[in-house]
Amino acid sequence: VTGTEQRFHDLVQRLGEIADLERAAGLLGWDEETKMPPLGAPERAEQRATLTRIAHELETAPELGELLEELRPFEEQHDRDSFEASVVRITRRDYEKAVRVPAELRADMTRTGSHGYRAWLEARANKDYRILLPLLERGLELTREYVACFEPDGDPYDVLLDVYEPGMKTAEVEAVFDRLKEELLPMIAAVSEPVDDGCLHGRFAPEAQRRFSLEVLELWGMDEEAWRLDDTVHPFALSLAPADIRLTTNFRDSDLHGVLSCLHEFGHGLYERQIDPAYARTPLARGVSSGFHESQSRLWENLVGRNIATWRFLFPRLRATFPEQFSAVSVETFHRALNRVEPTMRRVDSDEVTYCLHIILRFELERDLLSGSVALADLPDAFDAKMEEYLGLRPNDVVEGVLQDVHWSEGGFGYFPTYALGNVISVQLWERAAADLGDLDERFERGEFAPLHEWLGENVHRWGRVLTPQELLERAAGGPLDAEPYLAYLRRKLDQLYAGAVG
Amino acid sequence: VTGTEQRFHDLVQRLGEIADLERAAGLLGWDEETKMPPLGAPERAEQRATLTRIAHELETAPELGELLEELRPFEEQHDRDSFEASVVRITRRDYEKAVRVPAELRADMTRTGSHGYRAWLEARANKDYRILLPLLERGLELTREYVACFEPDGDPYDVLLDVYEPGMKTAEVEAVFDRLKEELLPMIAAVSEPVDDGCLHGRFAPEAQRRFSLEVLELWGMDEEAWRLDDTVHPFALSLAPADIRLTTNFRDSDLHGVLSCLHEFGHGLYERQIDPAYARTPLARGVSSGFHESQSRLWENLVGRNIATWRFLFPRLRATFPEQFSAVSVETFHRALNRVEPTMRRVDSDEVTYCLHIILRFELERDLLSGSVALADLPDAFDAKMEEYLGLRPNDVVEGVLQDVHWSEGGFGYFPTYALGNVISVQLWERAAADLGDLDERFERGEFAPLHEWLGENVHRWGRVLTPQELLERAAGGPLDAEPYLAYLRRKLDQLYAGAVG
Repeated sequence: VTGTEQRFHDLVQRLGEIADLERAAGLLGWDEETKMPPLGAPERAEQRATLTRIAHELETAPELGELLEELRPFEEQHDRDSFEASVVRITRRDYEKAVRVPAELRADMTRTGSHGYRAWLEARANKDYRILLPLLERGLELTREYVACFEPDGDPYDVLLDVYEPGMKTAEVEAVFDRLKEELLPMIAAVSEPVDDGCLHGRFAPEAQRRFSLEVLELWGMDEEAWRLDDTVHPFALSLAPADIRLTTNFRDSDLHGVLSCLHEFGHGLYERQIDPAYARTPLARGVSSGFHESQSRLWENLVGRNIATWRFLFPRLRATFPEQFSAVSVETFHRALNRVEPTMRRVDSDEVTYCLHIILRFELERDLLSGSVALADLPDAFDAKMEEYLGLRPNDVVEGVLQDVHWSEGGFGYFPTYALGNVISVQLWERAAADLGDLDERFERGEFAPLHEWLGENVHRWGRVLTPQELLERAAGGPLDAEPYLAYLRRKLDQLYAGAVG
Repeated sequence: VTGTEQRFHDLVQRLGEIADLERAAGLLGWDEETKMPPLGAPERAEQRATLTRIAHELETAPELGELLEELRPFEEQHDRDSFEASVVRITRRDYEKAVRVPAELRADMTRTGSHGYRAWLEARANKDYRILLPLLERGLELTREYVACFEPDGDPYDVLLDVYEPGMKTAEVEAVFDRLKEELLPMIAAVSEPVDDGCLHGRFAPEAQRRFSLEVLELWGMDEEAWRLDDTVHPFALSLAPADIRLTTNFRDSDLHGVLSCLHEFGHGLYERQIDPAYARTPLARGVSSGFHESQSRLWENLVGRNIATWRFLFPRLRATFPEQFSAVSVETFHRALNRVEPTMRRVDSDEVTYCLHIILRFELERDLLSGSVALADLPDAFDAKMEEYLGLRPNDVVEGVLQDVHWSEGGFGYFPTYALGNVISVQLWERAAADLGDLDERFERGEFAPLHEWLGENVHRWGRVLTPQELLERAAGGPLDAEPYLAYLRRKLDQLYAGAVG
């Protein structure tokens, strides 16, 4: 072992400890939202804060910076895609970003976000935006301080975007979003009469929904050796190890939303599950960006999970699970109901066509808030005005309006666009998978989901953070970010749905 | 705020972080044994090791030692039982012990214990003690090194005992155990014919056992706001916060052992639940010793849970849960079955009378191993010989014999005696509670368990580690460790059971 190899070993050792702390903090969060007795909350907050703080100290330790400097020649001796070069490169990127932010500012942001969350709950309960306003003011102020740490020479919003979508520029997002807006607004206007989705409402025993969901997920590639599915209030997915994937959902007995959220979270889980296990306990062992992560969940939820071919295989099983509700319903009627297009007040209830408009209006408002062209005091009105402009709906109160999402209250400015990017990327990947694998619909009708699962593993998942999001998209989808495949997909889907609506 | 008060605040802050890491490590363990998908195991071991290591670094940090030195006058200004003096005193005790042990030795012990556990599983699977022997040798060697760190001038076993039973001396344990042996051996010999416990065998649906157990535990003081009950392989209890108590059990459909293990673990949980919440996130917020902890679990399992008065209230509920099994069984027959006395091969299956003999033989063997008068190579034979001498049973193989318990394989020398001390202490406390509260049986027959629950909170639990085990026993039970109440209780019980056996 040479001195340099020993230094690389030391680096990997340090990174392993940081990863262990982060995963342990992840378990504290998972447990809090799925298992913890409610009175455990105050101590849990302390436990999470302590682990996060220690992890941050290790991430910004001067010794880590020295190791990274010493390992520059080592990095250059290895291929760019190699484990060795990638560990050093990605760690350096994280380190250089982390040390720019004073620990005190970071702690302040965390604390304000946590108070903001509680104020958000209270503001909602009282339908009173003013309860939240001071914390939003503080959060935005801290966000501006955070941006200033990076001395941006371009759009300051780039700094926020980079947290979730490394390397992406605001101008690129804007170009894609302008194109989406241009097409989606007339598309929605053309949907005169929403399809009937009555078959999706009724009584669906949660235990039966769980059984059906697990049946689907196991068919798609989940197994008990490495995955779990638990109940929670706000569904999420989490990886505690390459082979310890936690999905969560929320089954309500009045509809099947919980089943669809399982399909969505499965996409997140599968991404983490298929990252090269050699990257475990290093910063490479995560999805490369929020947009890419969202592309995986939206792909399984929408492109697979709202696909008529999939339901030609699954619907008999669903009918066997809920004979009363579905014995008189055709798979075509069910599929149309699942794809009903209609503007909704809440982002989380929205369909594939209107979803991106919810995102675009938030992206535009975030930029206006950051630049100061919209004041936080005027945000509720600005939000309602955009809702009316893009979706033709006017919120009746702030809970239906600006308070519907928690992100801003927690200081999460810059996250929203990644949801829409995920939709766009999902169809870019899908088209390439279909080109490589042949007719996916035919396979789905036979219950064959493994080829897609494996294609995604080979072309997207296994890379972890080795490639940048831009490189990954280029290699996996064969081109840069492009709204056209997504728009074409939506057009085809609408044609199909409305052509069949009388059948 | 004076400088000294600021220093005390700094100390409490540091202790809070250590506590957070320890509880987070606790959650990693709980999850591993109750929820984790099996393939998550390798990373989980790393995560636990990292958190434990960081906690140990913080516990032995020179800055902590300096703080403790500076706070000597502050400690003296406060009452001995006060929060302030107790935090400093107990932290100093822990610190002075921790810094005697080199980090490398501690890591070696943990690693060897972990390998020992796996070797134990393999040795059991192959019924071959030789598979385990090298790891036992290594574990004992490290144990001797650990003992040497404390340069003991008395019995070296005192050092091991002190890990679990702070301040207790081997000679005290020996005196109590000699007395137990003297009485228990003839007591067991006098039980000619074991009572019929046929009613405890049959088919008991685990879900029904769970419902019944929760019904009992809620009656005893468990509530969903602060407690959980989960399934596991080897039952245990854990506290993640004063109001986050995790019980685990293992319901088998062939008997009611899982119900009894719930009652046992409840005792551990209640202890942690009733520690003064002001001690949270300090070293005071734990049970004071293993023996005291065990006294609480044995008290609820045996003195309450195997009590005819308790079952006069509970049996109709049990019968409603399992009408087929119990409709033709009287509460007296059930109670006698629950208290059947008969030597068993396995410690964990043993009754109240024979239990202590299982412990005593292990205690004697541990001392012989430590002194070298028994070699590890000869341990299986020595174990079998003691089993025959004390319980009249000869193990058929090493799985029935020396491999039945995991403790030694993991390096846990010194733990066993605390089980028997728990039995002894449980009756000492019980007698005092009965003296203070009047006829407990009458209360139990009416379903009133709260007075005992509260008495234990006030007299034992709330203290945490503020009092030493010796002080706590003196204050709560009014005297030093004493085997006589326990022996008298067993005599009364045997008389009652055998007097009623023909009724």
